[in-house]
Amino acid sequence: MAATGKDTLFARMALIGAGLIGSSLARVARRQGLAGHIAVSARTQGTLDKALELGFADSVSLDAAEAAEDADLVVLCTPLGAYGSIAETLAPALKSGAIVSDVGSCKKIMFTDVAPHLGEGVHMVPGHPVTGTEHSGPEAGFAELFENRWCILTPGVDTDAAAVERVSELWRRAGMTVETMDVAHHDQVLALTSHLPHLIAYTIVGTATDLGDELKKEVFKFSAGGFRDFTRIAASDPVMWRDIFLNNKDALLDVLGRFTEDLTALQRAISRGEEKALEDHFTRTRDIRRGIIDAKQD
Amino acid sequence: MAATGKDTLFARMALIGAGLIGSSLARVARRQGLAGHIAVSARTQGTLDKALELGFADSVSLDAAEAAEDADLVVLCTPLGAYGSIAETLAPALKSGAIVSDVGSCKKIMFTDVAPHLGEGVHMVPGHPVTGTEHSGPEAGFAELFENRWCILTPGVDTDAAAVERVSELWRRAGMTVETMDVAHHDQVLALTSHLPHLIAYTIVGTATDLGDELKKEVFKFSAGGFRDFTRIAASDPVMWRDIFLNNKDALLDVLGRFTEDLTALQRAISRGEEKALEDHFTRTRDIRRGIIDAKQD
Repeated sequence: MAATGKDTLFARMALIGAGLIGSSLARVARRQGLAGHIAVSARTQGTLDKALELGFADSVSLDAAEAAEDADLVVLCTPLGAYGSIAETLAPALKSGAIVSDVGSCKKIMFTDVAPHLGEGVHMVPGHPVTGTEHSGPEAGFAELFENRWCILTPGVDTDAAAVERVSELWRRAGMTVETMDVAHHDQVLALTSHLPHLIAYTIVGTATDLGDELKKEVFKFSAGGFRDFTRIAASDPVMWRDIFLNNKDALLDVLGRFTEDLTALQRAISRGEEKALEDHFTRTRDIRRGIIDAKQD
Repeated sequence: MAATGKDTLFARMALIGAGLIGSSLARVARRQGLAGHIAVSARTQGTLDKALELGFADSVSLDAAEAAEDADLVVLCTPLGAYGSIAETLAPALKSGAIVSDVGSCKKIMFTDVAPHLGEGVHMVPGHPVTGTEHSGPEAGFAELFENRWCILTPGVDTDAAAVERVSELWRRAGMTVETMDVAHHDQVLALTSHLPHLIAYTIVGTATDLGDELKKEVFKFSAGGFRDFTRIAASDPVMWRDIFLNNKDALLDVLGRFTEDLTALQRAISRGEEKALEDHFTRTRDIRRGIIDAKQD
């Protein structure tokens, strides 16, 4: 199905990777008529077959360069660890004026692993739609995933303003509010709001897997007391998160250090029975929740 | 409103405390006609007024002993720190054959702080409905809170079997599945499935409050990446959780030690770039989530 001319932002959009985010972007682009043609490339034929079956791709290819050929916009939607080799593969196929973007949770990697492969006339606009679920794969996507969420773009200072605006418009039409940010600042903020929570959730759920089988069964049964919420987060895609942790290592280890200090302080307060210190701390955290409700992200 | 005779389990049920759990128990008892008369005692007149206004109490009193007088069942629904003094206050008012239970998240305290005050003819059946929300107070309760969740009872080995059965039946009629467990085992399992997750959530949210104002605002904005789920847990009642941590100190510090070891190991794997170790760990945690879905607690 070709989109109507009026709302089309890109004559041809190529998505490299069609998991939760990529397939959701394809779906909303389809629904809103944001791209004249949606080309999808993925690592396995199974994903490509699924993309055709679910109807969110106009063409599919195992070769990223083939999908990227003649594309006005190429969006990397794979785990971060694949960025470098994909950029190397598809760069020669890019036409002058093409925009290369992505949806990854760390943004520095676009400058270190992708930019060096791109030719003169290609515009790089790194992007991060801050949304997701614990599910993965092409069947997990849905067009509404982006609604009322933030999308952060981290273009370089010299990046073509028109290219940045076109990518902004794509995400706005998908339902997001777009904000531009310095790349290092993005990686610092997300280390705290996303990467550390995931690391902690993976850890605590891992701690439970090391228990004996009998105790483990009880952990499942009585998970409604709080544990359950952590397992939801810790069910996210393992390869994606491995790559995020490794690529945002410095910022993540920094906030992890602060967290560990704070945990040690609470541990000591519990160990010493310091009632007042504990109550004060827990009252403060309740106010933070109110801040999030005020920011309409609850 | 008096309940119909047929389904009434207790002619008079006294609830000491009418927050989220207490008021929910009153509501479901009302709806199912489980008690002929529901007496509510609370620390403030405001809560008692609310209980009458919301219609889940037949009588109210600031004096726990007055509420407990002639009661067939007394349920402590306050923070753990108040158990000892409440038990001391109401014990002389209890009639022979009365049952004393509670809804707290640690169970050892019933044996250390409550049992010593109870007379010969009184039966103690400690209970823990494993459910909740991040909201607190009499208005936060609802009759459906207990549906399809577990309730754990930890009676002593010599406790009257008929008393245990009557308390079990109360929770079954509220929609729960009831399991009996050794008190120390309960406190160990809950330290992992509930107390540690709450402590971690309180810590990470606290770490964010110590940031500068500008960064804090961004944490709110971009919380959809994972942080949000932690703030929900960390919005729970501060006094209730302070008391839980202090009362289950030993078991909590034990699982916290395991968690810290595991976190240090993951930190080292990230710091050293050990891809395989990270991916293996995150794949294992995904299976745990499947276990919880299988246990129908998701």
